[in-house]
Amino acid sequence: MLAIRGIAMSIDRRGFIAASALLSSRVLAEETAAQKPMTQSHGSSPRRPLRRIATEEAFATPEQMAGMIGLSRSGWENLDMGLWRAWGRLQPGQANRLHDQLLDLEEVRIKEMDDNGVHMQVLSLTSPGVQQFDAPTAVSIAQDANDKLAAVIARHPNRFCGLAAFAPQDPKRTPQEMDRAINQLKLNGFILNSHTNGEYLDDRKFWPMLEAAEALERPIYIHPRCPSDDMAKPFRDYGMAAGICGFHTETALHATRMILGGVFDQFPKLQIVLGHMGEGLPYWLYRIDHVWRSTGSPDRLKTGPMDTFHRNFVVTTSGVNDPKVLKFVIDQLGADNVMWAIDYPYEVTKPAVDFMNTAPISEEERHKLFYLNAERVFHIPAV
Amino acid sequence: MLAIRGIAMSIDRRGFIAASALLSSRVLAEETAAQKPMTQSHGSSPRRPLRRIATEEAFATPEQMAGMIGLSRSGWENLDMGLWRAWGRLQPGQANRLHDQLLDLEEVRIKEMDDNGVHMQVLSLTSPGVQQFDAPTAVSIAQDANDKLAAVIARHPNRFCGLAAFAPQDPKRTPQEMDRAINQLKLNGFILNSHTNGEYLDDRKFWPMLEAAEALERPIYIHPRCPSDDMAKPFRDYGMAAGICGFHTETALHATRMILGGVFDQFPKLQIVLGHMGEGLPYWLYRIDHVWRSTGSPDRLKTGPMDTFHRNFVVTTSGVNDPKVLKFVIDQLGADNVMWAIDYPYEVTKPAVDFMNTAPISEEERHKLFYLNAERVFHIPAV
Repeated sequence: MLAIRGIAMSIDRRGFIAASALLSSRVLAEETAAQKPMTQSHGSSPRRPLRRIATEEAFATPEQMAGMIGLSRSGWENLDMGLWRAWGRLQPGQANRLHDQLLDLEEVRIKEMDDNGVHMQVLSLTSPGVQQFDAPTAVSIAQDANDKLAAVIARHPNRFCGLAAFAPQDPKRTPQEMDRAINQLKLNGFILNSHTNGEYLDDRKFWPMLEAAEALERPIYIHPRCPSDDMAKPFRDYGMAAGICGFHTETALHATRMILGGVFDQFPKLQIVLGHMGEGLPYWLYRIDHVWRSTGSPDRLKTGPMDTFHRNFVVTTSGVNDPKVLKFVIDQLGADNVMWAIDYPYEVTKPAVDFMNTAPISEEERHKLFYLNAERVFHIPAV
Repeated sequence: MLAIRGIAMSIDRRGFIAASALLSSRVLAEETAAQKPMTQSHGSSPRRPLRRIATEEAFATPEQMAGMIGLSRSGWENLDMGLWRAWGRLQPGQANRLHDQLLDLEEVRIKEMDDNGVHMQVLSLTSPGVQQFDAPTAVSIAQDANDKLAAVIARHPNRFCGLAAFAPQDPKRTPQEMDRAINQLKLNGFILNSHTNGEYLDDRKFWPMLEAAEALERPIYIHPRCPSDDMAKPFRDYGMAAGICGFHTETALHATRMILGGVFDQFPKLQIVLGHMGEGLPYWLYRIDHVWRSTGSPDRLKTGPMDTFHRNFVVTTSGVNDPKVLKFVIDQLGADNVMWAIDYPYEVTKPAVDFMNTAPISEEERHKLFYLNAERVFHIPAV
C-alpha cells in the first residue's frame, strides 16, 4: 500500500495521466518505489524515475492478417510467407500464441507489460507490413492500420505510441498518408520492412516518401523482412531466412544501398532507426567507409558512409540481449544513439527487461537507452 | 650496429634460420632491439621477441591470372569478374599495382615486409582461387599453384608459409591433393573462397574434403568472394559486391550454413579460419544461437551454433583496422582465437602494422595476435 501510494504521489507531481493503468500493475508499482534511490544518484542524468519504452513492438490488424494469409495461399514462394501460411491453417478459434498476440493490443499485451515493468510499447504493424500487396490494397490496409493504431493509443496514451505503416508501392500518394499519420493521427514515426518487391529506398521513385519523413521530422524505422526473391535461394535452408541470417543480411544491405546511393546527401536530416543492434552495421562502419574511400568514388557523396551513419542512424537492441554487443555498440555509436526494444511478441519480454536492467552500463546510459532517447527520437512526451 | 648485433645474438639463442634476411631489414632490426623491454614485461606470455605473421596474404599465379582473364572475356556477368576484366585490358608490360603485386612474390612483397616489420606472410592463392574454372582446369591450376607456393617457401622458409588451393569441383580427387599439399609440400592449411558455383560446404558432396582437412589437422581458411549469381542482383550497384558488403554477406552466410548444416557434428575437430573479424559472426552469435534454439530444431545438432563457433572457428583481423571491433572480438572469442592479417596487396601494409602495434590490448594479447596463435593454428615453427 505504501508503495502504491508512493507512485500515486509521484504520478501527480509529474502530471502522469494513466494513473489507473499504472496502479493496476504490481511490478511497475513496486519498481517505481524501489528505484527511487537510483534515480537520485545517477549523476548528471535527469532525476526522473526510470521509464521503460520498448521501441520495436509488433501488432497485426485483422485486415493485414487476412490479406497475408490470402497471399500465402497463392503459391508465391516468397521467404516471408512461412508464418502466414502456418496461420492460414489454423482452425477457427484455434489458439496460436504468435498469431493471437499480434492481433491482441489491450489484453495479454498490457498484462505482459505490467508484469514486466514495461511502461510503453512503440507499436508497429508487423513485418512485412503492407509491402507484399498490390498498391491499392497496400494503401487501404496501411490507412486502416494507422487508424486502428491511433485509436488504441487514444485509449492508452501512456502505454502505447506508434509508427505509421505506409505503402511504398504508391510513392506519390503515400506522402499524404504520412502527413495524416503525423499531423492528424499524432503517430510518432514510420515503419518500413526493408525491400518492396526487391526494390530499396535508394531508388529515386521512393524519394517523395523520404522527403515527407524529413519534412515531418519523424524517423523511419527500417525493420527486417526476409531477403527478396532476387536473392532468396541460399537462405531457404536451415531456417536461415529470418532472424538467424536473412533479416540482418537484407536490412544491412538496404541501409548500405541508401547510404551509398546518396539518400542522405539529399535528405541530411532524415533519421533512420535500425533494430537488432544496427543490423550489424556498427561492426562494419570502418570497413565500409575505408573500402568506399579506397576503391569507390568518394566524391560522389558529400558525406561519407561512417559520418552518415553517425548523423542519420539510431539503433535499437531488439532481439540481441548480448551485453558484449551492447557495450560495443555504445562504444561505437554513443549512448545517445541506442534504444531499448523487446520485439514483442516474437521475443519474450522478461529476458529483454532483465538484460537492460542488468546491462554493465552506467545508470545515465541505462536511462538513455530505456526511455530518454526514445522520447527524443519518437517525440514521446515525458511523463 | 649495436641494434643489429643485438638481434643477431637473439637470433642465435633461438635458432632463427633466416638471419641474413632479417639483417637486411632496417625496420625489423631496429624494432627487434627496441622491443626488448616490452618482451621482458608482458607477464605470462613467452619471453620471445615479437614476430609479425600476417595470415591472409594473397598471390596469383600466371596460370590463374590467364585463366581468370579468359573467363572474364566470356561474357559471364559474375560479380567476381570485375578486377580480372580490368586486368585483361592491360597492354603487355603496362603496370598495374594490384595485378603486379599479386604476381610478385620475392621483390616488392619482401621489401614491403622488411620496410614494415612483417616477419612472415601466410600466402594464399587470391580469390576466387580456382573455383570458377571447370573441374580439370581447377585441379590443374590448384596443383601448379601449390607447387609454386612450396617452391617460394623453400627459398624463404622464414618469410613465407602458405595455404594450399584445392578444387571443390572435384571433391573425390581433391583429398589426394590436400594430402600431398600437407605431407609432401609441407604447406600449412587450405584456402577456400566461399561458394563454388553457388554451392556451400554444407553440401555433403564436399565432405570428403572436410574429412581430409580434419584428418590432416590443418585449418581451412574460408576467404570471401562475391555473392553467387543466385543472389547477385542487389549487390551490383555502388561497388557493393566485394569489401563493402558482398564479401562478408557471402562468407557469413557460408559459415552459418556449415554450422546449421551439421558439418561440425560430423567433423568436430575441423578448424575454420574466417577473415575480416569473423565476417561479422561474432556480432551475431547470441542471436543466431538464440533464434536457432527458439524456432529451429535444436536436437538436429549435437552442438549449438555458439558452442560450435567457439570450438571450430578462429578469426583474423584482415581489412578491419578498427580498435573497437578488435576489442569486441577479443572479448567475444578470447585472445587465443584472433590472428593478425593485412590482406596484402589489397590492403596497405603499414596501417595494418600500426593498427596492431598500437591496439589497446595487453602485450600478452598482442603477442598472441601477432604470431603465437598463427604458429598454433598453421603449425608454423617457432623461431
